[in-house]
Amino acid sequence: VALMWREIRSNSADDVTQKLHPTCSSSSSSSSSSCSVPGVSGATPTEEMNGAGNLMDFLDEPFPDVGTYEDFHTIDWLREKSRDTDRHRKITSKSKESIWELIKSLLDAWSGWVVMLLIGLLSGTLAGVIDLAVDWMTDLKEGVCLSAFWYSHEQCCWTSNETTFDDRDKCPQWQKWAELMTGHAEGAGAYVLNYFLYILWALLFSFLAVSLVRVFAPYACGSGIPEIKTILSGFIIRGYLGKWTLLIKTVTLVLAVSSGLSLGKEGPLVHVACCCGNLFCSLFSKYSKNEGKRREVLSAAAAAGVSVAFGAPIGGVLFSLEEVSYYFPLKTLWRSFFAALVAAFTLRSINPFGNSRLVLFYVEYHTPWYMAELVPFILLGVFGGLWGTLFIRANIAWCRRRKTTQLGKYPVLEVIAVTGITAVLAYPNPYTRRSTSELISELFNDCGALESSQLCDYINNPNMSRPVDDIPDRPAGPGVYNALWQLALALVFKIVITIFTFGMKIPSGLFIPSMAVGAIAGRIVGIAVEQMAYHHHDWIIFKNWCRPGADCVTPGLYAMVGAAACLGGVTRMTVSLVVIMFELTGGLEYIVPLMAAAVTSKWVADAFGKEGIYESHIQLNGYPYLDVRDEFTHRTLATDVMRPRRSEPPLAVLTQDTTTVEDVETLIKDTDYNGFPVVVSRESERLIGFVQRRDLTLAIKNARQKQDGVVSSSVVYFTEDAPQLPASNPQPLKLRRILNLSPFTVTDHTPMETVVDIFRKLGLRQCLVTRSGRLLGIITKKDVLRHMAQMMNQDPESIMFN
Amino acid sequence: VALMWREIRSNSADDVTQKLHPTCSSSSSSSSSSCSVPGVSGATPTEEMNGAGNLMDFLDEPFPDVGTYEDFHTIDWLREKSRDTDRHRKITSKSKESIWELIKSLLDAWSGWVVMLLIGLLSGTLAGVIDLAVDWMTDLKEGVCLSAFWYSHEQCCWTSNETTFDDRDKCPQWQKWAELMTGHAEGAGAYVLNYFLYILWALLFSFLAVSLVRVFAPYACGSGIPEIKTILSGFIIRGYLGKWTLLIKTVTLVLAVSSGLSLGKEGPLVHVACCCGNLFCSLFSKYSKNEGKRREVLSAAAAAGVSVAFGAPIGGVLFSLEEVSYYFPLKTLWRSFFAALVAAFTLRSINPFGNSRLVLFYVEYHTPWYMAELVPFILLGVFGGLWGTLFIRANIAWCRRRKTTQLGKYPVLEVIAVTGITAVLAYPNPYTRRSTSELISELFNDCGALESSQLCDYINNPNMSRPVDDIPDRPAGPGVYNALWQLALALVFKIVITIFTFGMKIPSGLFIPSMAVGAIAGRIVGIAVEQMAYHHHDWIIFKNWCRPGADCVTPGLYAMVGAAACLGGVTRMTVSLVVIMFELTGGLEYIVPLMAAAVTSKWVADAFGKEGIYESHIQLNGYPYLDVRDEFTHRTLATDVMRPRRSEPPLAVLTQDTTTVEDVETLIKDTDYNGFPVVVSRESERLIGFVQRRDLTLAIKNARQKQDGVVSSSVVYFTEDAPQLPASNPQPLKLRRILNLSPFTVTDHTPMETVVDIFRKLGLRQCLVTRSGRLLGIITKKDVLRHMAQMMNQDPESIMFN
Repeated sequence: VALMWREIRSNSADDVTQKLHPTCSSSSSSSSSSCSVPGVSGATPTEEMNGAGNLMDFLDEPFPDVGTYEDFHTIDWLREKSRDTDRHRKITSKSKESIWELIKSLLDAWSGWVVMLLIGLLSGTLAGVIDLAVDWMTDLKEGVCLSAFWYSHEQCCWTSNETTFDDRDKCPQWQKWAELMTGHAEGAGAYVLNYFLYILWALLFSFLAVSLVRVFAPYACGSGIPEIKTILSGFIIRGYLGKWTLLIKTVTLVLAVSSGLSLGKEGPLVHVACCCGNLFCSLFSKYSKNEGKRREVLSAAAAAGVSVAFGAPIGGVLFSLEEVSYYFPLKTLWRSFFAALVAAFTLRSINPFGNSRLVLFYVEYHTPWYMAELVPFILLGVFGGLWGTLFIRANIAWCRRRKTTQLGKYPVLEVIAVTGITAVLAYPNPYTRRSTSELISELFNDCGALESSQLCDYINNPNMSRPVDDIPDRPAGPGVYNALWQLALALVFKIVITIFTFGMKIPSGLFIPSMAVGAIAGRIVGIAVEQMAYHHHDWIIFKNWCRPGADCVTPGLYAMVGAAACLGGVTRMTVSLVVIMFELTGGLEYIVPLMAAAVTSKWVADAFGKEGIYESHIQLNGYPYLDVRDEFTHRTLATDVMRPRRSEPPLAVLTQDTTTVEDVETLIKDTDYNGFPVVVSRESERLIGFVQRRDLTLAIKNARQKQDGVVSSSVVYFTEDAPQLPASNPQPLKLRRILNLSPFTVTDHTPMETVVDIFRKLGLRQCLVTRSGRLLGIITKKDVLRHMAQMMNQDPESIMFN
Repeated sequence: VALMWREIRSNSADDVTQKLHPTCSSSSSSSSSSCSVPGVSGATPTEEMNGAGNLMDFLDEPFPDVGTYEDFHTIDWLREKSRDTDRHRKITSKSKESIWELIKSLLDAWSGWVVMLLIGLLSGTLAGVIDLAVDWMTDLKEGVCLSAFWYSHEQCCWTSNETTFDDRDKCPQWQKWAELMTGHAEGAGAYVLNYFLYILWALLFSFLAVSLVRVFAPYACGSGIPEIKTILSGFIIRGYLGKWTLLIKTVTLVLAVSSGLSLGKEGPLVHVACCCGNLFCSLFSKYSKNEGKRREVLSAAAAAGVSVAFGAPIGGVLFSLEEVSYYFPLKTLWRSFFAALVAAFTLRSINPFGNSRLVLFYVEYHTPWYMAELVPFILLGVFGGLWGTLFIRANIAWCRRRKTTQLGKYPVLEVIAVTGITAVLAYPNPYTRRSTSELISELFNDCGALESSQLCDYINNPNMSRPVDDIPDRPAGPGVYNALWQLALALVFKIVITIFTFGMKIPSGLFIPSMAVGAIAGRIVGIAVEQMAYHHHDWIIFKNWCRPGADCVTPGLYAMVGAAACLGGVTRMTVSLVVIMFELTGGLEYIVPLMAAAVTSKWVADAFGKEGIYESHIQLNGYPYLDVRDEFTHRTLATDVMRPRRSEPPLAVLTQDTTTVEDVETLIKDTDYNGFPVVVSRESERLIGFVQRRDLTLAIKNARQKQDGVVSSSVVYFTEDAPQLPASNPQPLKLRRILNLSPFTVTDHTPMETVVDIFRKLGLRQCLVTRSGRLLGIITKKDVLRHMAQMMNQDPESIMFN
């Protein structure tokens, strides 16, 4: 399929705008396989139509297109908000005119809730379908169900008569490939054949995934959270949340997860939910025509995404609030909660896990934790922090290498190679062969009386009756020691392979691999502590709380604490992380261990670098993201940051009543600023307003076509009244309607910390700088970002968009 | 005790400042008993010293006192933030100098967490003590424990040998007053004596409570949440969170709740926790000297307060975020969560409820809910919304009456009268005689097999075995019908008496009475539905989900849903309400019913008026609170709101180099604006900065005392360099240091919705209005509030402070 690709070249001379040079080339000439927007560099034309393409007309604007944004530009939150208020005002005043208008206004007021309901229903359904499909396809790598090929292993053996889990696992309806093809279920030959087919399936799935992404929706790769954060902060990336992305991301996510790569579905589910949000926005002009309102919906959609990823609606809302969203008013809080709940209940009614539970890893522990256990929990926190630092540094270094070297040119090959290595190394180890979420689930589980897993192979005291719940600590049997070795190998494998997997050109989430690393480490520590407590219960540290014959240590809890610590180290989530874990266990009992680990992990990781993985990827890709959490503490003033600098030519301004159409056109041609300040006269430099480049271009084009007497020598008037000229003179062009009469200004002495604060809180695009009423210069969002990067000794040129 | 009282008179002529006329009078001359700051009108001098009084020196400020705020003034958030950044910068740069400075900087960085820990510990402890004391004193009204008089009824009978709850209730160690005094436990005489003593104790408790409040800490009355909201939005009320208020509020809260009045301890606990927060702020100059940082701590303290009130830490954080806080950065979210958890665990280790549970009303239900039940749930939501509207209107009307008529002059009498009426009416009905939280607890409970309450008096099928959990629906016995009547009477009683109770001059929370109203209504509806389902299980609505012999309806769940609906109708909480309820039940199972009721109740209540009870009280008391939730949708511009209006004299300004000291002093004497713009010259009107009145006064006073040659005819220079004058001339006074060179400006064409947004988001005190670089006027926060009130057709004069 030959597609149109666009390259985006950074315009080095200027800071305010970014030119887009559409060039035509085949899809194979894409310059990089790195999973980021500038590397991917463009959406298909179809997508552009699907995505934000229908933004192009706005009700009652003076000219078509006025008031919209170009791709890769920053929105002006204040303007969006005031446009919405205008719209609302219009509807309210109209609603008094007739019953029909009243109904329309009521529908308008309810549309927000309708959108939330739809988002919840669709994202819940998609999550359920993804879960079911992943289940089936993961098992397909190993064998097939004879009674119905579309059944997963578990569903296939559901109705089997065997009683124990172990036997039921080997029900006759389910056949491994070797058994089906050769008739032999055991032996070296069967093992090799199964091994080979496992690798083959994995390669097939990942090849399909990467090809689909490359051909149909390049934006579908990666976790999507860095880009969604950037979009929510007020940036336009057309097609990133389009229908094609939604479809392809859903399909390829199933393929990627099923291929056995070390990746999860949680981040991509957030992206999928946001695509749903964007899709339903287009049903209501209230949201489709206002980029600010649209972002409110997207924030709620992100909450729904996490809600279905973990079955944790409250955690999802807090995740959206803490991690993803930029502007999160109270109204959005309530709506997010609604969307998250609807999504969670939709998922539950699909019941993909077959346990009528909402949550992905449902656990129930029977023993409390003891104060002394805080020491290993905090150690797990330290491990999580170190893992987070290691992962972020190594992954970013690898992604940078991919961006800058030849490596990036062969994305398909890269995916195939990594899948091959993963499959070859994963198959021999039972803990890496199965899907990562099954692994985590097993590690989290407490060893009950009926558990048949290797991890629960404890030596039982034959004299002891076995109660169902409260099983005392027992010495570990050979199975446990065996499992420990395999887990240790799995840990090393997961740590290394995840670094290379995240950032490839397929959908890939980070939550599950991070949690797996932590859960493995935690379970190992947990078993070690348990065995120490059993064998040395006379040691002073165990004496007080662990008598022989008591159930003191729950290794599953350690796995959960470890998972929280590692996830916290990578993402730097705090409250939302603890709440998600709290929703998984469903009790406040274990919040203290989880919090101790999460806090330690965050502190340890922060000591090595403030940014989490998402912020690091945002920086790597140079997205114009103004982080709310970075405190700007330098002593610079607005005058140090504003353009023009001393050595530069003076600011390009328009005057209110002396500029001609030709002057304006020359200015537009010669510069590529996003907008121009309008002053009373060049001498007084007193500011009266600001006009957007886009609006100006459109207005002049429109006037030249439709308005008689407007020629190059016509004077452009931004004043309230234009003088009456004789008909022979060129007619004046009155453009006050497109003039923003309330541009944002600060004085040159304003400290930059205040300016940064204003940009953040009000979501400005640019801000004019004055001194005693005279216009001195302009500060754009990009100037602010570049200045912040300079102050933090980073490469300021990495910020590529404006 | 003769105390100093101050009266605050509204200065009708001007809008920028508020004069305080300290007058000396005895405490009995206080003009109103209404529980609000202007009515209470002043803190004791002691408190002023304790409260924010030690704000008075700021490190390295040019003159002492510069940069602080007067009582009843609004803070400037931007300035506070930039002062904190300065402080932080200083510490960071110093920390490189020596080890000691490094340690100090680390301590400074950790002080936030230390404060949180201390707040959690103290507020958890106080909540535990309050719970225990209330328990004991509530029971003291009925009888006394012979084995140890400081035991409550439950603790007294704890070790009793009786097996059933009913028998244990009547253990011999616990004696009712009549039994103890006359020896007769039964009979009309004993009843009358018990009745009489019940009333007597109630009157004693409430008299003590109101007297303590009046004499020692007038700010201790009411729920405190409206005032805390106002303080958190950036207003200074000295002493409102002082040590005396903390002590007296804790003591009087116990007395007020024990007296049996229809009030709860939840709101006051938030106030108590905030007092703790303020107390610990004074330990660290980082917080005590910065009003912005102090408010971050107070937000977290509010979360801790709700956390201990309900045992719901996550709900507490969300309550603080949704309902109370104004500025809630992510850092505060995490710290609030920490404080809330520490508080909850401290409370749990005190274990006042004796059930090792965190939560106030722990419930466990055994049956799911059915879709058809949503109808009664939504009806309960409608009831909750109606109750909310009724309560707010009636209570506000009554409070306004109290403020404006003679009624307000007798606060003690009012409390005594209401207590008397409450006690007389409450005693005969067993559901109102006991404490409200016990009542709610019983209503929430599912009827288990061992339940001996009247509400569980169902007729058992003798042929049926009785499992512990899953008891099928049964016909109601006479006890249930009896209980229904008593509950109906209790409902009417609670509805009426709560309206008169809330707002009296004692600590009073609203949560518990509101929940009680809802729980009673809900339980009645629940029993009705249950009996309908039992007797008419062939009706089409029951046919699908309720077979005979099944346990379909849980009346306790209806009580809980009703409680949520009523609480939601009164406070308009949404997410935090559902989360608190979710934490009480500990399962996602019942979130949908709760949410359906909460949403319905909010919508119904909002249809009658947007404000919740707290906002209504804020408005009634005229606090300068800029609500984040009010959408400003009118088409006015900055020019319509700014002062001076057309008919008024021109704006009082200073010039940068022509004003003399005498001119300035005259200006300060003649006007009472909070600050003055400084312009280049009166002709050009080009703005260069803004100077605070307070700073100006202090600077001139200081200069006159300490600086040679500064006399009345000295010229005040705000420019960078003052001219060198011969020694004979009066020496110039250079005041550039106190000049704010980055005053906030908007143009006169800026829509008011943008101005309101800027005031809200940046927390400004005032904003200057310019047109093409010329200064036109000024908009203060009070102007904005007054304009908003005007636009909503409210009485603009009710906003009394600035």
